[in-house]
Amino acid sequence: MIIAIDAMGGDEAPKSIVDGIERFLKEDSETQIRLFGPQATLEKLITPSSQVTLINTTEVVSGNDEPVATIRHKKDSSLVRAAADVKAGKADGFLSCGNTGAVLAAGIFIIGRIKNVERPALMPTLPTVISGKYYNMLDVGANAEVKLSYLTQFAQMGSIYAADLRGVKNPVVKLLNIGSESHKGDSLHQEAYQKISQISDINFKGNIEPNDLFKGDADVVVTDGFTGNAVLKTLEGTMKTILYLLKNNLINGSFTTKLGALLVKGSLGSLAQQFNNSQFGGAVLLGVNAPVIKGHGNSQPETVYYAIKQVKEMIKGQTVQKFKDLY
Amino acid sequence: MIIAIDAMGGDEAPKSIVDGIERFLKEDSETQIRLFGPQATLEKLITPSSQVTLINTTEVVSGNDEPVATIRHKKDSSLVRAAADVKAGKADGFLSCGNTGAVLAAGIFIIGRIKNVERPALMPTLPTVISGKYYNMLDVGANAEVKLSYLTQFAQMGSIYAADLRGVKNPVVKLLNIGSESHKGDSLHQEAYQKISQISDINFKGNIEPNDLFKGDADVVVTDGFTGNAVLKTLEGTMKTILYLLKNNLINGSFTTKLGALLVKGSLGSLAQQFNNSQFGGAVLLGVNAPVIKGHGNSQPETVYYAIKQVKEMIKGQTVQKFKDLY
Repeated sequence: MIIAIDAMGGDEAPKSIVDGIERFLKEDSETQIRLFGPQATLEKLITPSSQVTLINTTEVVSGNDEPVATIRHKKDSSLVRAAADVKAGKADGFLSCGNTGAVLAAGIFIIGRIKNVERPALMPTLPTVISGKYYNMLDVGANAEVKLSYLTQFAQMGSIYAADLRGVKNPVVKLLNIGSESHKGDSLHQEAYQKISQISDINFKGNIEPNDLFKGDADVVVTDGFTGNAVLKTLEGTMKTILYLLKNNLINGSFTTKLGALLVKGSLGSLAQQFNNSQFGGAVLLGVNAPVIKGHGNSQPETVYYAIKQVKEMIKGQTVQKFKDLY
Repeated sequence: MIIAIDAMGGDEAPKSIVDGIERFLKEDSETQIRLFGPQATLEKLITPSSQVTLINTTEVVSGNDEPVATIRHKKDSSLVRAAADVKAGKADGFLSCGNTGAVLAAGIFIIGRIKNVERPALMPTLPTVISGKYYNMLDVGANAEVKLSYLTQFAQMGSIYAADLRGVKNPVVKLLNIGSESHKGDSLHQEAYQKISQISDINFKGNIEPNDLFKGDADVVVTDGFTGNAVLKTLEGTMKTILYLLKNNLINGSFTTKLGALLVKGSLGSLAQQFNNSQFGGAVLLGVNAPVIKGHGNSQPETVYYAIKQVKEMIKGQTVQKFKDLY
């Protein structure tokens, strides 16, 4: 198993990427890493070995770069080179914590869509209030425009991923909608409800409303890329805002409030931990010819470590081959 | 000014509704309330006066009733009768904290859409992290299907409301989208961006992403009813979940955590207060022939009090007439 990694993607790259790789290699002796970035910089951080190959690149993709133009013009960037490595058959999977749009474009246009998959979908693994219970939501932004047939494929691919990679038996699939009954939502979602319920190998349990996402009664949540992206951004924004207000209220509080804040600090930390997504790795681009993982832009070494494990599991589990067999 | 109120809508109706009315009447001697509900029940709670008329109704709309069927068949429900009262010219505005779909249907089909308004929109007033700074978001669910022309009208109606009712000078209008640049999102949102920016009397400042809603740099946020409803439900669900987890962590914590929790209790209360929406009244159904307000289902007397004030302000400000003049 060979994984191509973009060393220059993410807020704390390449340090956090290299640290994540080193943690991974402490417990793995079978996987090979091909690490793309400026050789002179990388050599200061990591020593090449039988498991680590450094490949020199001269360009870096920034967060503001326009995705498709990046793929076309920054040919010697660490992101594009790592994806091209997979395309050339030199690596089996691809990981980047960089520019989301560029990672998606690299996955779709360089590594390529699986034949008969209409549209690849971006899919994170998200936490619920039930400890140890997660759900996969797709698409959260690979496609702003949506068709009915995309949604049914998302349901199938998400279901296979949850069963295979997370080991969920007969995963419960729900459709993200603005009401629980089958007639709720726009005509697209009404039709999707009917279509998905007709697919025999999917354990479809109807609609889920966005306020119920945390309850943990779905393993896979199917949505279009526009709604999925909006809901995910609302969720992250709200969480960040409340924790900010809370901290602010505690810091600017009275003496007793401050004393109390000191005492509850550990507990608040464990709350943050509960929603810390490092253990879920990154978001997967499902429906392309190899495992493609987009790690969060602010990925810490721990997140990178889990994301590498996730690529490895997908390679090992032959998830991509299962999608190819399906369509 | 005469306001028709559904006494039976909401989790704690009719008690919370009556208590809200009584609070309102303590500081108002010019408004008349026509209160719809079972007379025998209401008489035990409130005494008719020169300002309060009780109108007996025999049916009640439940939260599970199908909206359009309700309007057709529960003709003697407090909700339908109150709306019909406005239609008959006996009242100038309508308030209910009941079944959202039924309130929308009553507003649209009984009170009626303003000529040339393509679709009425449901619009709450929402808090930001900046004290005293709110924004109006529309549509949050009156229309699951959307057309470009609806969105431009939402921008106009929302802008007039923010200026007139909330006294915001030259309100900043933004389009809810999954990216900040004009080319982001699906074709509908790309076109809406262009169209809204061409309307001369709108202070349009481009897209806003859902994670930035709390920042307070928009006065009016324009969105389609599907996305708006999904985002609002995500926001409410996330807030509820974090406060639940927080409480849970504090209750189940160690002795020091519990002691700390006692000390920060006031501060957490003020956090909740910051997001307590009672002061914003209810969500307005904009684009119908009279002020129609839908109060939150769990409205406390304070919320009802503010919602009545809101109906009064809309009647006084002739907001509906301004929309009529515009189209």
